[in-house]
Amino acid sequence: MSFKYKYRISWVDTDALGVMHFSNFFRICEKTEEEFRIFYKLDTPGISFPRVYAECNYKYPLRFLEIAEITMDIKEIGKKHIKMEFQIFNETKKRLSAFGNIVIVAINDKFEPIDIPDWYINKIKEIMEKF
Amino acid sequence: MSFKYKYRISWVDTDALGVMHFSNFFRICEKTEEEFRIFYKLDTPGISFPRVYAECNYKYPLRFLEIAEITMDIKEIGKKHIKMEFQIFNETKKRLSAFGNIVIVAINDKFEPIDIPDWYINKIKEIMEKF
Amino acid sequence: MSFKYKYRISWVDTDALGVMHFSNFFRICEKTEEEFRIFYKLDTPGISFPRVYAECNYKYPLRFLEIAEITMDIKEIGKKHIKMEFQIFNETKKRLSAFGNIVIVAINDKFEPIDIPDWYINKIKEIMEKF
Amino acid sequence: MSFKYKYRISWVDTDALGVMHFSNFFRICEKTEEEFRIFYKLDTPGISFPRVYAECNYKYPLRFLEIAEITMDIKEIGKKHIKMEFQIFNETKKRLSAFGNIVIVAINDKFEPIDIPDWYINKIKEIMEKF
Repeated sequence: MSFKYKYRISWVDTDALGVMHFSNFFRICEKTEEEFRIFYKLDTPGISFPRVYAECNYKYPLRFLEIAEITMDIKEIGKKHIKMEFQIFNETKKRLSAFGNIVIVAINDKFEPIDIPDWYINKIKEIMEKF
Repeated sequence: MSFKYKYRISWVDTDALGVMHFSNFFRICEKTEEEFRIFYKLDTPGISFPRVYAECNYKYPLRFLEIAEITMDIKEIGKKHIKMEFQIFNETKKRLSAFGNIVIVAINDKFEPIDIPDWYINKIKEIMEKF
Repeated sequence: MSFKYKYRISWVDTDALGVMHFSNFFRICEKTEEEFRIFYKLDTPGISFPRVYAECNYKYPLRFLEIAEITMDIKEIGKKHIKMEFQIFNETKKRLSAFGNIVIVAINDKFEPIDIPDWYINKIKEIMEKF
Repeated sequence: MSFKYKYRISWVDTDALGVMHFSNFFRICEKTEEEFRIFYKLDTPGISFPRVYAECNYKYPLRFLEIAEITMDIKEIGKKHIKMEFQIFNETKKRLSAFGNIVIVAINDKFEPIDIPDWYINKIKEIMEKF
């Protein structure tokens, strides 16, 4: 499956080189994940998904007001983790800007690691099959 | 009283004009307030201090690696609020960079407004008298 | 005139109290201003608009995934400055979240203060009359 | 070689789970790199070092006011790239918080990739030998 989200680079996202700061690529990936959950109504009260791994390869900058198209794919879903892949495309310049992946796990309200609920895994698998 | 804190401008603080983003002036004021509380051991378990007002006048930019010296003064302390004044001096360029003020109130764990505890007011007043 | 922009609160916007950090209110105001300029094609090559003043009154928090509706009004436009007023409405909770204003001035590529170009003032006035 | 830098977690660094947001780990690594350059007077006018890769493994959270001790090691230095390794230790809780690495390349004022200057490579190698 592939989920797409567009984001316009804001002034505050840029740094003194005039390009989006490298840490903000991770932030727009997370924003894409948030929109994905909203879109598919993946609400999980009492469960949070902290990141255990994050990686990004930078290929081409994103500048003020340029449009980033972020593509998110769920690459793995297990009992304990979900691995998401991201591609960030500079739509304004028609160039691949960056790609990377983020791995998340589930915890409960007490910060204890828990299994990802079956209904959640099934729903994600269902979404993945559609594509 | 006057409390001083020095902060070196990081790359991530800058924007595409090569200067610290205007929102980050508020962040280094808050950082100064945090250092002030640490320094005077002003720990308040169960009480938070959300901002109800924040204001900043910008006079001269701060650039990458320049040193900001932030001076914090407590201007008012009442039963319900504390007003802090900040001056941000660009120490590298010997120029006043910005000044402003922030007003905070006290809330408990349930987000309900509460009176600022007497011991806290007294401790602040004691600190103020020293200067 | 009134320009409206909606923004969904991201995880990264929140702080340990579970609400949007006070500095981020300024960032979503600036984002609204960016969308306003895009919408009305207010492109000004070679001219930047640094902030000389920013102020915010906080009334009610914005939490993760809540929708903020930001209303921007241009209150003053002179030869040297533009004053914008912002209202941030928590649309999810139907409560006024914050309001404030930001004053900007014009500078050229060499960071020198300049007059705001007549065509820009006129275009803004034209937009203001429409409302 | 190993370079160490301590950073106290600020309120703005936290998110609604009460822990430092995952993107901010990259920011405190970059801050450590800045302090490293300052400490060893590694000034490179006209040359910038954009990131081409960044990776982080998250092991244990950092909370408000906790102290992070960041250890930076230069693992590789070639004609075209520098690879830095980071370890982020939660000093308050005496637990490894995160580790990762960042790869940078050199560009000139026109954003063109250039060789890392020999004097810079030599200086770094000299620093590395000291440890």
